[in-house]
Amino acid sequence: MKKYGALEAGGTKMVCAIGLADGTITEQTSIPTTTPEETIEKIAAYFRDKDISALGVATFGPVDVKKDSPTYGYILNTPKLAWQNFDLLSALKEKIPVPMEIDTDVNGSCLGEMTFGCAKGLDSVIYITIGTGVGVGIAINGKLLHGMLHPEAGHSLLSKHPDDHYKGKCPFHPNCMEGLCAGPAIEERWGDKAYNLSGKKEVWEMEAYYIAQALVNFICTLSPRKIILGGGVMHQEQLFPLIRKKTKELLNGYIETAELNDIENYIVPASLHDDQGIMGAVQLAKWAENGAD
Amino acid sequence: MKKYGALEAGGTKMVCAIGLADGTITEQTSIPTTTPEETIEKIAAYFRDKDISALGVATFGPVDVKKDSPTYGYILNTPKLAWQNFDLLSALKEKIPVPMEIDTDVNGSCLGEMTFGCAKGLDSVIYITIGTGVGVGIAINGKLLHGMLHPEAGHSLLSKHPDDHYKGKCPFHPNCMEGLCAGPAIEERWGDKAYNLSGKKEVWEMEAYYIAQALVNFICTLSPRKIILGGGVMHQEQLFPLIRKKTKELLNGYIETAELNDIENYIVPASLHDDQGIMGAVQLAKWAENGAD
Repeated sequence: MKKYGALEAGGTKMVCAIGLADGTITEQTSIPTTTPEETIEKIAAYFRDKDISALGVATFGPVDVKKDSPTYGYILNTPKLAWQNFDLLSALKEKIPVPMEIDTDVNGSCLGEMTFGCAKGLDSVIYITIGTGVGVGIAINGKLLHGMLHPEAGHSLLSKHPDDHYKGKCPFHPNCMEGLCAGPAIEERWGDKAYNLSGKKEVWEMEAYYIAQALVNFICTLSPRKIILGGGVMHQEQLFPLIRKKTKELLNGYIETAELNDIENYIVPASLHDDQGIMGAVQLAKWAENGAD
Repeated sequence: MKKYGALEAGGTKMVCAIGLADGTITEQTSIPTTTPEETIEKIAAYFRDKDISALGVATFGPVDVKKDSPTYGYILNTPKLAWQNFDLLSALKEKIPVPMEIDTDVNGSCLGEMTFGCAKGLDSVIYITIGTGVGVGIAINGKLLHGMLHPEAGHSLLSKHPDDHYKGKCPFHPNCMEGLCAGPAIEERWGDKAYNLSGKKEVWEMEAYYIAQALVNFICTLSPRKIILGGGVMHQEQLFPLIRKKTKELLNGYIETAELNDIENYIVPASLHDDQGIMGAVQLAKWAENGAD
């Protein structure tokens, strides 16, 4: 049976795994992210002798995912200085001579859910992770969204809640989604970690107010067939009914679709137990093998 | 030489034209939009004996553009009651037996600019018309964006300007782009038609504030390679530098790309002299002939 390599490249750790065509992960390890040279060598050592047919890479960004670009496969202007302008794809290819496909970590998670999870069979899907930051992966017409760059929709601008006097956590934008919604913003605004605030109604109503605004804009712009919410903050399950209610309230009946009439199955939690990213990387490996562009 | 039929279906008029493969419009007429029966008969009479190879339809919406849907090609819940749930595509096919492709008017304009205009060769483009309403056409990976429905991004939500006490024109959303930016909103807010307000700096600074916010969200979400602004309001050319400046200010350097560094060529006016829609319909006809999906 064919084996595929999967790499979920993060700022603090590199998850390396072997997967089968049906998404089954047969083995997995985690390598700390240090210097590029040291880290790549350890990743290569892991995949050596594993007999993989191809490697899928779902990476932190920003990353150049444009195949026609001279810097295709490079990590771009990241705050992790050692990785800035690092040619990740070539470094991997030099040591692991198999077909490779690279995309963002969140596009990878979106692909995992579309291929093996709750969005199976849908061609237009958004995956949003809300944790230490906010990341958004998007698929349109069955393909992951790239353009000038890739989605950076965690930095979409939102209207401030009238009762929210918090200045926002993002150093770039006083009112972007990440700066108002991510875990560090919750902690700074309310003075405690999100998981210690589960019982505080006002925390989650404000959180839902912001998330729903972003969803309304994503719905109006992308018209996805499903919206999947993952990440640490979304482990607060009480958020889902609040987000669904506020989204409907803000849309106010303007868009009428079967999906919105069944909103419990439209705005849903991630379904792959935090394996959506690595399973998406398996699918990227399958695409690499088949030469998909 | 092959001839293609092009229909730009609007709520007040139907523009019918004959075009060549290179986008040249060889003849064109306009039919008032009355009842579906009467209007379709006149459209069919125009195209009869014109020897067209295929017909492209760029229509007002909402319209069902999902080919796998039982109501594919229907006008959906429009305020024009006679056209509500009208099976436009079948009505046309019954009288004009050629291959047809249907999309929204603004997706059509986007396609026109991508095929024959200022976005030629780009695979990821947004076309925004700001006139009596706000419409947004989107192409991703060279294909027009469909999903659950089609873009309705004119109803994206924006933050109110601190000095704007106008309640918004949209009956659904107190702070959506259309309700704050379209011609009727400008007129109601400032007490005069947009074209009589050209010299009033505060009008266009507020307008640019809203448009730029929407562009920032489209850029973060869709990462387009070009943004094209058309429609009556955008004939106020003084808006372009204001919008570009405000967009950069709001993005605040977070996204770094060659396109944003050359913003004069990134956020641009429509280039096809208001023929972008009908020329897009010609391209839809070419797609229909080739069986593109």
